[in-house]
Amino acid sequence: MSSLLEQLIDALRVLPGVGQKSAQRMAYHLLERQREGGLRLAGALEAAMSHVRDCERCRDFSETPVCAICASASRDTQLLCVVESPADRLAIEQATDYRGLYFVLHGRLSPLDGIGPSELGLDGLAERLAAGEARELIIATNPTVEGEATAHYLAQLARRHGVRPSRPAHGLPLGGELEYVDRGTLSHAFGSRSEVV
Amino acid sequence: MSSLLEQLIDALRVLPGVGQKSAQRMAYHLLERQREGGLRLAGALEAAMSHVRDCERCRDFSETPVCAICASASRDTQLLCVVESPADRLAIEQATDYRGLYFVLHGRLSPLDGIGPSELGLDGLAERLAAGEARELIIATNPTVEGEATAHYLAQLARRHGVRPSRPAHGLPLGGELEYVDRGTLSHAFGSRSEVV
Repeated sequence: MSSLLEQLIDALRVLPGVGQKSAQRMAYHLLERQREGGLRLAGALEAAMSHVRDCERCRDFSETPVCAICASASRDTQLLCVVESPADRLAIEQATDYRGLYFVLHGRLSPLDGIGPSELGLDGLAERLAAGEARELIIATNPTVEGEATAHYLAQLARRHGVRPSRPAHGLPLGGELEYVDRGTLSHAFGSRSEVV
Repeated sequence: MSSLLEQLIDALRVLPGVGQKSAQRMAYHLLERQREGGLRLAGALEAAMSHVRDCERCRDFSETPVCAICASASRDTQLLCVVESPADRLAIEQATDYRGLYFVLHGRLSPLDGIGPSELGLDGLAERLAAGEARELIIATNPTVEGEATAHYLAQLARRHGVRPSRPAHGLPLGGELEYVDRGTLSHAFGSRSEVV
């Protein structure tokens, strides 16, 4: 086999969920039918890997020092939503009508892995809260053990600066069947039930 | 969202089986954790798309005018195996101990799509057969309607030049259960049964 082809197959395996077989299929597909698309992908990869950095204010991906959302004049700057990853930020932006700002942790507190508040940019967040930039901190970390610990830390941080902490509701997903909901969620949903009015 | 990021997500969709959601996940994964891998992939794509061409003899992908297999001194040059795609060639090379040469069609005869013998490089193949370069032509096209028609054409071409045409055996796959084999294969396997000796 051509060694450039071997190198391409090997390089494609950097993509999540792509093993040897998929990488082979992708490489052959591009060479047989999508050379222009392949070259466009090469350029897009090069540009994004080299020029996409973290926004100075929210730490989300941005190719400008301050991202479009942070720079926008039409957002409610008194609302600040903390998420673990840019993908979480995108999911919220696409699914909800939330019009406040974001703060991206790029991770969660994990002392065993050496990830403390400063690795997550929480010094900067604390400064913003101290400066009275937000009235509410929406803590949208994931409902995992580490995500919950991070949420607890963030709630304390908010209260210390007189900012109201909040969390998105947890409970049964809409359109899901009760039978297939995991036990933790079901138990939480029953504990947090509300009266029908 | 950063427009370089949007461009990357869009460009990733050129990969087979990658839709909007997978492309997003791939882009975020690379930016968060694999920037170097992403840059390596960009380089590998650029090099492969620009420099991998078809071997002058077998039409398989090659970065040199003649591919390594065609140029090898240790292959049986009197055996020639015709396949539809480079991926088929790779599968045979990886699974069997075949040590002859290959010829890659990059397709199959499909008159309705304007794909005739010359689009598949069969003029060159006929010249090689006429020059007495092969004693046997192994026709390993896929067992589809168009693949069978192509096989029929190739068998006639071989006979015309005094070359023996052959096909890999068709029948029940090893390790498969009879119950799950498709009807065509099962019927063919019964029609082509051989005596137990």
